[in-house]
Amino acid sequence: MSGKKILIIGGVAAGPKTAARARRLDPEAQITILEKGKHISYAGCGMPFYLSGQIHDFDHLYSTAYGVKRDPAFFKAERGVDVILGMEAISIDRANKKVVARNVDTGEETVFEYDKLVLGTGAYPITPPIENLDLKGVYRLNHLTDAEKIKQAMDAGEVNDVVVIGTGFIGMEALDAVFNPMRTVTVVEFRDTMLPGILDPDMAKLLYKNLYEQGIEGRFGEKVLRLEGEEGKVTRVITDKSAIDADAVILAVGVRPNVKLAQEAGLTIGETGAISVNEYMQTNDPDIYALGDCAENTNLITGKKVFAPMATYANRQGRVVGDNVTGGKSTFKGILGTGVLHCMHVNVARTGLGEVQARALGYDIETVRVSTFDMTHYHPSSNKVLFKMIVEKNTGKILGIQGLGQGEVAKRIDVVATMIQYGGTLDDLLELDLGYAPPFNTPIDPMVHTGNTLKNKLAGVAKTYTPEEVEAKLERGEDFLLLDVRTPQQFNMRHIEDDRVQQLTLGDLRDKLDQVPRDKEIVTVCVMGSRAYEAARILEGAGFKDVKFMEAGMEGWSFDMDE
Amino acid sequence: MSGKKILIIGGVAAGPKTAARARRLDPEAQITILEKGKHISYAGCGMPFYLSGQIHDFDHLYSTAYGVKRDPAFFKAERGVDVILGMEAISIDRANKKVVARNVDTGEETVFEYDKLVLGTGAYPITPPIENLDLKGVYRLNHLTDAEKIKQAMDAGEVNDVVVIGTGFIGMEALDAVFNPMRTVTVVEFRDTMLPGILDPDMAKLLYKNLYEQGIEGRFGEKVLRLEGEEGKVTRVITDKSAIDADAVILAVGVRPNVKLAQEAGLTIGETGAISVNEYMQTNDPDIYALGDCAENTNLITGKKVFAPMATYANRQGRVVGDNVTGGKSTFKGILGTGVLHCMHVNVARTGLGEVQARALGYDIETVRVSTFDMTHYHPSSNKVLFKMIVEKNTGKILGIQGLGQGEVAKRIDVVATMIQYGGTLDDLLELDLGYAPPFNTPIDPMVHTGNTLKNKLAGVAKTYTPEEVEAKLERGEDFLLLDVRTPQQFNMRHIEDDRVQQLTLGDLRDKLDQVPRDKEIVTVCVMGSRAYEAARILEGAGFKDVKFMEAGMEGWSFDMDE
Ligand SMILES: Cc1cc2nc3c(=O)[nH]c(=O)nc-3n(C[C@H](O)[C@H](O)[C@H](O)COP(=O)(O)OP(=O)(O)OC[C@H]3O[C@@H](n4cnc5c(N)ncnc54)[C@H](O)[C@@H]3O)c2cc1C
Ligand SMILES: Cc1cc2nc3c(=O)[nH]c(=O)nc-3n(C[C@H](O)[C@H](O)[C@H](O)COP(=O)(O)OP(=O)(O)OC[C@H]3O[C@@H](n4cnc5c(N)ncnc54)[C@H](O)[C@@H]3O)c2cc1C
Ligand SMILES: CC(C)(COP(=O)(O)OP(=O)(O)OC[C@H]1O[C@@H](n2cnc3c(N)ncnc32)[C@H](O)[C@@H]1OP(=O)(O)O)[C@@H](O)C(=O)NCCC(=O)NCCS
Ligand SMILES: CC(C)(COP(=O)(O)OP(=O)(O)OC[C@H]1O[C@@H](n2cnc3c(N)ncnc32)[C@H](O)[C@@H]1OP(=O)(O)O)[C@@H](O)C(=O)NCCC(=O)NCCS
Ligand SMILES: [Ca+2]
Ligand SMILES: [Ca+2]
Repeated sequence: MSGKKILIIGGVAAGPKTAARARRLDPEAQITILEKGKHISYAGCGMPFYLSGQIHDFDHLYSTAYGVKRDPAFFKAERGVDVILGMEAISIDRANKKVVARNVDTGEETVFEYDKLVLGTGAYPITPPIENLDLKGVYRLNHLTDAEKIKQAMDAGEVNDVVVIGTGFIGMEALDAVFNPMRTVTVVEFRDTMLPGILDPDMAKLLYKNLYEQGIEGRFGEKVLRLEGEEGKVTRVITDKSAIDADAVILAVGVRPNVKLAQEAGLTIGETGAISVNEYMQTNDPDIYALGDCAENTNLITGKKVFAPMATYANRQGRVVGDNVTGGKSTFKGILGTGVLHCMHVNVARTGLGEVQARALGYDIETVRVSTFDMTHYHPSSNKVLFKMIVEKNTGKILGIQGLGQGEVAKRIDVVATMIQYGGTLDDLLELDLGYAPPFNTPIDPMVHTGNTLKNKLAGVAKTYTPEEVEAKLERGEDFLLLDVRTPQQFNMRHIEDDRVQQLTLGDLRDKLDQVPRDKEIVTVCVMGSRAYEAARILEGAGFKDVKFMEAGMEGWSFDMDE
Repeated sequence: MSGKKILIIGGVAAGPKTAARARRLDPEAQITILEKGKHISYAGCGMPFYLSGQIHDFDHLYSTAYGVKRDPAFFKAERGVDVILGMEAISIDRANKKVVARNVDTGEETVFEYDKLVLGTGAYPITPPIENLDLKGVYRLNHLTDAEKIKQAMDAGEVNDVVVIGTGFIGMEALDAVFNPMRTVTVVEFRDTMLPGILDPDMAKLLYKNLYEQGIEGRFGEKVLRLEGEEGKVTRVITDKSAIDADAVILAVGVRPNVKLAQEAGLTIGETGAISVNEYMQTNDPDIYALGDCAENTNLITGKKVFAPMATYANRQGRVVGDNVTGGKSTFKGILGTGVLHCMHVNVARTGLGEVQARALGYDIETVRVSTFDMTHYHPSSNKVLFKMIVEKNTGKILGIQGLGQGEVAKRIDVVATMIQYGGTLDDLLELDLGYAPPFNTPIDPMVHTGNTLKNKLAGVAKTYTPEEVEAKLERGEDFLLLDVRTPQQFNMRHIEDDRVQQLTLGDLRDKLDQVPRDKEIVTVCVMGSRAYEAARILEGAGFKDVKFMEAGMEGWSFDMDE
C-alpha cells in the first residue's frame, strides 16, 4: 500500500503540524520527517517558563496534555508519521524529486524520494560580531539544549550578574525568565529603544520605565564589542560606551531564516531573505512547499513581504500545507504582525503598523494614547492598561494598536486585529458589541474608549499633547501652564516638579476659573487622561482660547519626575 | 447665558452618560436630570460583588476611580449638570415641549421646559404571581437599596437557606454572590434550562453540572406558586412540584421597560414593549430620544427588534444621544446580544444566535462543540474551556458562539462578535492574526481550533455525535461501540459505565486494529475531543466504515453525575 510520498524537512513546529494534518486527510500517504537535531515537536516558546520555574518538568516542553512525550515513537503510533532524527537534508534534486540527507553522526548519506516536499527548516540565531562569544557563561535561548544549559547554570548558582543582549521578543522573555531580586540584570540594546520595530519608542519607554522600577537596567544605543573572561568564563561585557560585570550573558539578537537548502536547489528567496511562497505556501516549484520560520510572509496592511518568525504562523501554515500536499487548496494570505508578551508582570501586545512604521510608509495618520482600566475600577481585579492607536486620518481606517500594562491587553488587541483584517474603521469600532460585566470589562470597552478619544481628537473636541510634547515644551522653557486637575492627595504623591505646574482639582475648576490665567496656553493633566480632557472641555467652554490636555496622564509620563 | 434646554428623565446609566457627553460638546446647554429615586449614577452591575464581599465599600458603587462620590454635587461641579432627586416626571406635553414632574416627598408639581427630551427611564423588576412576596427575607437585586438590604441580612446571619428564583443574568449573579459552602443555595427556574435564551440547553446543562458539583441545587421546569412564612418571615418556597426550606429568597425573574411616561405621551412602543427608536435613538417625536433599558434594540443578525437591558448599551447609547441632542448625527445600529458572566469560578460568554434561536428562525445551520485549553497546556495558568459555534451551512457565515469554563472565554467571544459584525465566515476565521504567547493562547487560537473543527465537520473529515446523541443511543439500547481512547489512568478515574464501552489508548490503536470490531458503528471518545477525532481518522483510514467521535469528549459529558 504505497501512497503519495510526502517528505518534510524540519521537525519542530512547521514540519510536525504539516505531517499531522496531512495524515488525517490522507491515510495512505507515506509521510516522513527528517530532523537533523535530536529533539522534535517541542515548545521553544515554553522555554522561558521552564527557566523561570513555572514549568517544573523539562519534558513538559514536548509532551501532550495527556502526558505522552512527542518523540518519534509518538509520531509513529499516534500520527503514522516516520521521523528520522539526526538526519540532515543536504541537497534537493528537483528534476528527479529526490533529497539527499546525511546522518549527522555517521556521515552516511541516504536518498529520499518525494512527491511533495515540505521545507520547515526554520531559523537560526544570528551570531553578532562580538569577540569571545565562546566563553563559558554565554548562552542563547533558541533551542531546548540552550534552555537546559541555562537551567543547569542557574541551579548551580552561576547566574547572578546577567547581561541580556538584545530586546526583541526572545530577549524580553529571557529577561522575564532570569529576573529575580537576587540577580543583577542588565539589558543591552543596539538600537535606541526596547522591542524595536515591535513597540513605538514612546510605548517602549513606558515599558522600560516599569521594568526599571522593578530593578532592571537598560542600556540603549549601546553596541556590545566584546566579552572578557577569566579562566574561560565570562566576567565582563564591553560595549562601545561602558563595561558591565557579568557571570552570564544571554545572546538574543535575532534569527535568520534557514534557506541554504532551498537556495542551492534554485528556489526563489525573497527580498527578506526568507523563502518566497504564494498564498498556498508553495515555492516557485509547485511540488515544494515552505512554511514557518524559513518562509516569507506578507503584511496584509502594506502588501509588503516580511520576515516574521512566529510559532503561531508555523502552526497555522502547517495546517494549510497539510491540506495542500494532500490535494487541497487552502490559503494563508498573510499577517498583521500581531504579537504578545508577558514580561515582569507587564502584558504587552501589538498589532498592525506602529506610528513609526506608518509614517515611514507615508500614511497620513492620527494617533492617541489612552490610559484606562481593563475592567470596572471598583472590581478588586481591575488594573490599568495603556493603549496607543494609529489610524489613517482621512478614512478613519485602523492601522495598528499597541497596549501595555498589568491588566488585560492581549485579547483586546485581538479584537482590533480582527477589525484590521476587515479594513475596520473608527466608526465600526463604536458599533462593536463587546461583552460587558464588571469582572471583564468597563461598560464602554477600553478599545472603544480609545477609539472615541481618537475620534474626539479628529473632531477637534479633544486637543492634546503627547507626554513627549509636554516634556519638550518644558525643556524648551516655553511659557505655559500645566494645570494638574487631580486631587491634592494624588498631586502630593507624585507630580511634575516645575514652576509652570499648578494644582486645581477638577471638581473646583468651574468655581475657580478666575485662578486660571487667560493669557497663556494651558495644558491639563490628570492620572489617566479623562479628567484632563474634561477640564479642557470646561476651560474651552468658558472661553479659554488655547487649551490642550496631556494624553494618558501621569500614567503615560515616562520622564524623570524628581528634577 | 441661556443655551439649549436638554431635559433628561432617569439618572442611573443612560441619563448621566447622555448628560456627560452632551455637556462636553455644548458648554452652553442647560442640562437637567430628573430622578425619582435617591441614588444616581450607580453601578447596578457591581452589586453582586458588594454582596460577595469583593467590593468592601458600598460607596464604591457610585464613586469615581479617584474617590469622588457621583452625587448631584459631583454632576454640578464636574459636569455642569443639574440633578434633581426625588423628582418623578409624570407627563410630557409634546406640543409645548414641557414635562410635568412631581416631588415624590411633597407631592409638589413642577413644570420643566425642554428643547430636547431624553428618556432614560430604565426598567423595573417583574413581580410574578407568587403569593406572600411581602414576607420578610424576600429580596430583589435590582436597586442599590436591594443590595443594602441583602447585605444587612447576610451580616446579621439571616441568609442561610437561600432560594434564588430565576436564572437569567441577574439570578446567576445573585447565586454567585450568595453562594458559600456554609449556605444551602437552590435555584428555581420556570423554564427547563439555566440561563434560558442566553445559553443553548446543552451548554446550560454543562454549566449547571459544574455548579452542581460545587454544591448548588437547581430545580428546572418548576414554577414557584407561593411562599410560606412564620411570624412574617419566609420559611418555605412552594413550587408546583416541591417545597424548599428558605430563610432568604431572591427574586430575579426579569425586568420590563419603563414606558408609561412615553406611552401616555403618544410615543410609539415597539413590539417588544420597549420604546421604539431609530438608529439615532430618536422616538417618533424627533425632539425626544429614548435609550438604555427603556428603549428597543435591533438584533443585527436577524434585523428583528429585541429587548436587551444591558448597561453597556445604555452607556454607548448615552454617548450617541449626547452627540445627537447637541447637533450631531451619531448612530447606534444594533446589537448581537453579547453577554458575559462570572458565576462560581466559571466564566460564561455568548454572542449572536444560539442553536435553538437559529433553528427557530429557519437557518440551515451546522454546530460544533469543542473543548480546548485557553493557553498552552503546559503553562501553570492554563484552564479548559468549552465552546459551541453555530454557522450557516451554505455560506459558512458565523451566526453565534457560546463558551464556558474556568479559563478565558470572554475576550475570545469578543473576537467572534467582532467578526459577526462584519458578516465573518469560517474561512475568515482561519486567516485571523491573533496574538500568541504561552501565557495567553495556544499557537492556534481556541476560536480557530473551533472553526477548524467545524470546517472539518462540514467537509466530512470530522464525523461526530454530540454527547446528547451518544447518551440517547446508549439509552435506546443501540448496538455500537464506544471506544474510549484515553490513557488507562484517565479511563479509570471516570468513564461512562456501559458494556458497550471499550478502552483502547490512542497510541496503541494503529497496532491493535484487530481488537476493534468491523461490523459495528464505532464512536470514539476522549477527554476533550481531539484524540477521539484522531482515532476516528485512524479507523476510517484503516477502512472502518461507520466511525464517529463524540464532540468535546468527557468535558462535554453532562450526564449521570452521581452514579
Ligand atoms: C525563547 C523563544 C520564545 C518564543 N516565543 C514565541 C511566542 O511566544 N510566540 C510565537 O509565535 N513564537 C515564539 N517563538 C518562535 C517559535 O518558536 C518559532 O517561530 C517556531 O519554533 C518556528 O518553527 P519552525 O518549525 O518553522 O522552525 P524551527 O523551530 O526553527 O525548527 C526548524 C527545524 O528544522 C531543522 N532543520 C533545519 N534544516 C534542516 C535540514 N537541512 N535537515 C534536517 N533538519 C533541518 C532544525 O534542526 C530545526 O529543528 C519563540 C522562540 C523562542 C526561541
Ligand atoms: C444585579 C445586576 C447586575 C447587572 N449586571 C450587568 C452586567 O454585568 N452587564 C450589563 O451590561 N448590564 C448589567 N445589568 C443591567 C444594567 O444595570 C442596566 O442595563 C442599566 O442600569 C440600565 O441603565 P438605565 O439608565 O437605562 O436604566 P435604570 O438603571 O433602570 O435607571 C432608570 C432610572 O430612571 C428612573 N426613572 C424612571 N422613571 C422615572 C420618571 N418618570 N421620573 C424620574 N425618574 C424616573 C428610575 O428611578 C431609575 O433610577 C445589571 C443589572 C443588575 C440589577
Ligand atoms: C502538536 C503538533 C504535532 C500538531 O499536531 P496536531 O495533531 O495537528 O495538533 P493540534 O493541536 O494542532 O490540532 C489538533 C487537531 O484536532 C482538532 N481539534 C482541536 N480541538 C479539538 C476538539 N476539541 N475536538 C475535535 N477536534 C479538535 C484541530 O482542529 C486539529 O485538527 P485539524 O488540523 O485536522 O483541523 C505540532 O503542532 C507540534 O509539533 N507542535 C509543537 C511544537 C510547536 O508548535 N512549537 C512552537 C510553539 S511553542
Ligand atoms: C460615569 C457617567 C456619568 C459617564 O460619565 P462620562 O464622563 O461620560 O465618563 P466615561 O468614563 O463614560 O467617559 C469618559 C470620557 O473620557 C473619554 N476618555 C476615556 N478615557 C480617556 C483617556 N484616557 N483620555 C482621554 N479621554 C478619555 C471618553 O471617550 C469619554 O469621552 P467622550 O464620551 O466625550 O468620548 C455615566 O456613565 C454613569 O453614570 N455611569 C455609572 C452608572 C452605570 O453605568 N451603571 C451601569 C454599569 S455598572
Ligand atoms: Ca521528567
Ligand atoms: Ca464609605
